[in-house]
Amino acid sequence: MSDVPPAGTGPGTGATARRRGRPPRTESADTRDRILTAAREEFSERGYEKTSVRGIAKAAGVDPALVHHYFGTKEQVFEAAITLSFGPALDAPKAIEEGPLDGVGERLARFFFGVWENPATRAPLLAIVRSAVTNDTAAAVFRRIVATQVLRRIAGQLDLPDAELRAELAAAQLVGTAMLRYVIKVEPLASADPEQIIARLAPVVQGHLTGS
Amino acid sequence: MSDVPPAGTGPGTGATARRRGRPPRTESADTRDRILTAAREEFSERGYEKTSVRGIAKAAGVDPALVHHYFGTKEQVFEAAITLSFGPALDAPKAIEEGPLDGVGERLARFFFGVWENPATRAPLLAIVRSAVTNDTAAAVFRRIVATQVLRRIAGQLDLPDAELRAELAAAQLVGTAMLRYVIKVEPLASADPEQIIARLAPVVQGHLTGS
Repeated sequence: MSDVPPAGTGPGTGATARRRGRPPRTESADTRDRILTAAREEFSERGYEKTSVRGIAKAAGVDPALVHHYFGTKEQVFEAAITLSFGPALDAPKAIEEGPLDGVGERLARFFFGVWENPATRAPLLAIVRSAVTNDTAAAVFRRIVATQVLRRIAGQLDLPDAELRAELAAAQLVGTAMLRYVIKVEPLASADPEQIIARLAPVVQGHLTGS
Repeated sequence: MSDVPPAGTGPGTGATARRRGRPPRTESADTRDRILTAAREEFSERGYEKTSVRGIAKAAGVDPALVHHYFGTKEQVFEAAITLSFGPALDAPKAIEEGPLDGVGERLARFFFGVWENPATRAPLLAIVRSAVTNDTAAAVFRRIVATQVLRRIAGQLDLPDAELRAELAAAQLVGTAMLRYVIKVEPLASADPEQIIARLAPVVQGHLTGS
């Protein structure tokens, strides 16, 4: 997991190092990864509010000043950690690109439940959702990432005047189903076969995205 | 707000008293209401985990033993408080009864956003959602109330084999839209005219509930 590039945060030491013919990973890149891994675990376990830069530094075995050096504020560490945790979900726009537009509803629903059905990718997503629902700063970071990296990219491929609202209402159907199935665990939805859910939701997502 | 009957919790002193020609409210009914109001405020402000029976008792100016006497455990106080906060939302099944089945999607969407658009009814709902998302016991209480008092009653009017799953997928579209609009506040959805959202969601809700 720590091989996923943390998308343009921090002073970017890794990129500079790699430009000179991919030398072995520098010590600073290792430190940065270690901090990010610790941050992810702290935010997952404690939620945004109860996590501190000091706690992250302690878990990573570094001085708090080093956390600030690489990432900035607690909000910025959270953004880097979310981007990493959210990695698999950020591929959603690709599900749109990979085929004709009239099959996009099914591809997107299938992609979405693929991420949520896998416990390894579900756990960090749940942690993000919990932080975003209970803390306004965390919600703002989550909103920025979801809006710029998922919703707008999906909307950009629709070529319709109200594409962003369409993408959001489609996302709402998927997000709401995830809430009721994985968080609140209402039956029979919580135990339903994912294929049955995908079959029900695909036309709804399709309708939101491309319907008249 | 404290006039809403707290739906079958506690020893039911009020009902017994009222049977004898509506005498003035007894002291015990007043105490019970005061505890319930305090509980609602404590749970709203602190969330399920950080709220204690001791804290509720202190806010209500009573002994903790009295909280246990009227409501039982912390989980049971939470259930009574949720039932009270959730009061307006529990009328959702009525929105189904009040007209022909082919207009149910619009009636339900309109009812749902009516509750969420009103700040007085939105605040307690948000507090419940926050507790349910972050705490498993609170989620279980929320699930029990939503399942028995909303979803099953809606499903019961559909007379279709998979009625409960239908009701849940319809609810998922509405709940997900509320999450993105009122909690995460993604634009343009967060600022969209409620009538526009209702117009988009009514056919989706209708399709889930009565579609083939």
